[in-house]
Amino acid sequence: MSSTEPERHHAMAVNRRIVLAARPHGEPKPGDLRLEEVPVPQPGPGEVLLRTKWLSLDPYMRGRMSDAKSYAASVEIGAPITAETVGEVVASNNPDFKVGELLTAFAGWQDYFVTDGKGSRRVDPQAAPPSTALGILGMPGMTAYTGLLNIGKPKAGETVVVAAASGPVGSLVGQIAKLKGARAVGIAGGPDKCRYLTEELGFDAAVDHRAPDFAEALARACPQGIDVYFENVGGAVFEAVLPLLNDFARIPVCGLVSAYNLTEVPPGPDQRPALMRMVLTKRLHIQGFIVWDFAAQAEEFRREVGGWLKEGRVRYREDVVDGLEKAPEAFIGMLKGRNFGKLVVRVAP
Amino acid sequence: MSSTEPERHHAMAVNRRIVLAARPHGEPKPGDLRLEEVPVPQPGPGEVLLRTKWLSLDPYMRGRMSDAKSYAASVEIGAPITAETVGEVVASNNPDFKVGELLTAFAGWQDYFVTDGKGSRRVDPQAAPPSTALGILGMPGMTAYTGLLNIGKPKAGETVVVAAASGPVGSLVGQIAKLKGARAVGIAGGPDKCRYLTEELGFDAAVDHRAPDFAEALARACPQGIDVYFENVGGAVFEAVLPLLNDFARIPVCGLVSAYNLTEVPPGPDQRPALMRMVLTKRLHIQGFIVWDFAAQAEEFRREVGGWLKEGRVRYREDVVDGLEKAPEAFIGMLKGRNFGKLVVRVAP
Repeated sequence: MSSTEPERHHAMAVNRRIVLAARPHGEPKPGDLRLEEVPVPQPGPGEVLLRTKWLSLDPYMRGRMSDAKSYAASVEIGAPITAETVGEVVASNNPDFKVGELLTAFAGWQDYFVTDGKGSRRVDPQAAPPSTALGILGMPGMTAYTGLLNIGKPKAGETVVVAAASGPVGSLVGQIAKLKGARAVGIAGGPDKCRYLTEELGFDAAVDHRAPDFAEALARACPQGIDVYFENVGGAVFEAVLPLLNDFARIPVCGLVSAYNLTEVPPGPDQRPALMRMVLTKRLHIQGFIVWDFAAQAEEFRREVGGWLKEGRVRYREDVVDGLEKAPEAFIGMLKGRNFGKLVVRVAP
Repeated sequence: MSSTEPERHHAMAVNRRIVLAARPHGEPKPGDLRLEEVPVPQPGPGEVLLRTKWLSLDPYMRGRMSDAKSYAASVEIGAPITAETVGEVVASNNPDFKVGELLTAFAGWQDYFVTDGKGSRRVDPQAAPPSTALGILGMPGMTAYTGLLNIGKPKAGETVVVAAASGPVGSLVGQIAKLKGARAVGIAGGPDKCRYLTEELGFDAAVDHRAPDFAEALARACPQGIDVYFENVGGAVFEAVLPLLNDFARIPVCGLVSAYNLTEVPPGPDQRPALMRMVLTKRLHIQGFIVWDFAAQAEEFRREVGGWLKEGRVRYREDVVDGLEKAPEAFIGMLKGRNFGKLVVRVAP
């Protein structure tokens, strides 16, 4: 059996993994996550052993660290943090997968992972850099594509606003909005990210949410109001967007990163009735989604965005961190907006 | 000219009308509305004079009395309150309309109205009682039909909850939900209205929002959760509905009658972030609408609901008030849920 040698090779190796030590209260602290070393797992019949090369860090992982009810199960205490990865097959007991191939998997924050390959997809390193399978051609890209097109439905001439706009979801939202003939306005933290949006990605305007006159600057950037607001962040950005919404505006709700670390219900006044009144008088359409709600569109997404990428019509940026042990710090920084581009960890060369 | 005689007949008559004397602060008070007498207007070329027979009273009118920005212009101080009416043509300078015909019109709270007939529709008193043109076959019926079918999209086996369920919109929402194979749960004020929903309209359950255990009773009435919540009221009812919503629930927002009289932003905590979090985790779809957004479906609505009405598959109830001078009191009572069925004023026999 061809897999015997690599299996043996890894049998004595160590699997480093980062597990949930304690449920974070508010902002995760380094002590909430623990690096530990365990034996490399062995693939059983029909299974393969993957060595993680690329690990994706995404805001949704903060939710998995909580035990609040959500659309997905929480990470259990002592278990590795959830994450999608690109790994190399280093041992295979499954004729469908050969040693040396690259596969996506939900391996979590660890070096090695055993899978039967269900739900994995082959990554062709010739077609695009493998890490893009975690970014523009992966879950973040598909989140942007499906949420914007199914719920946001931008029309030519409309104004599309997206927050966290230099991130992997937001940057594609704005670029697709442009491809559909809409005006794209990005919100990002700091002048470098804003410059990147307008100068490199072709956004029509970019607004720095850290600027003291943020709300006024957003209003100036949207002289015709807002028709689509792709919600990634909540909080003060949502507050500034609300008065600018046009009648019949659509709000795909993809994330609320500003609220993920909240530990208390914010003080009053209660803005919920005012929001509902605005929903009524402006005929707003607010809809939450996660990418898996549109799983049936995965092929279409990869074909269309893959095509745009090849043709140079969409671009992406990665923020690469080297070494699994750096994942916790990078993740905590991401929740504060410290990354610039899709945050990925290069776990193995 | 055949119209000369009736014109002369009414020229000396008096037009009673109820005008906005002052913008209500909170709940409208009798002094905010004023009955006055003015000369009957005379139809010009191409116009007709309508004598109001039926006047519709609807919650949206509270909004028109405010000067807050909304989807429709406010009533000006000194002008008659907006309302749809059924009136009889008593003088006509328009060959399309004959004396004696009944027309819908936005005549407002008054005895007489001059119109060129644009936007009016002929009411056939043989087909259904003329007042139904203001209820189940009019704007409230079409509001129920279009909001439920375009946004709520109830599927067989799902649970549809509607508040103000014995009113003209809510009662048809529940009956259409039943026709689509869904479970219909109505919320109404008091045991008589609740009994009416289950015993006369065929709702599966009815819950009294005045009962001290309202939230628990609603939960018991919805053992499979809530898939569609047709929002007419807001406030405490919405509060009780929220935890029962299923993933992918749809919330057509048609009205917020509990909030129409609010004068201050309610105290904290701020529930808006929690609502947005629920939108995300449950993938809720919240959408405001008014009936005119679906104006293109008017013919389809009248054909389909008119057919159901003839076949006895849907029913309605009216709360008739006699005399224009009773309109203010009836309207103020309606905002407190004192009417039982579609509230209409019989202005002339």
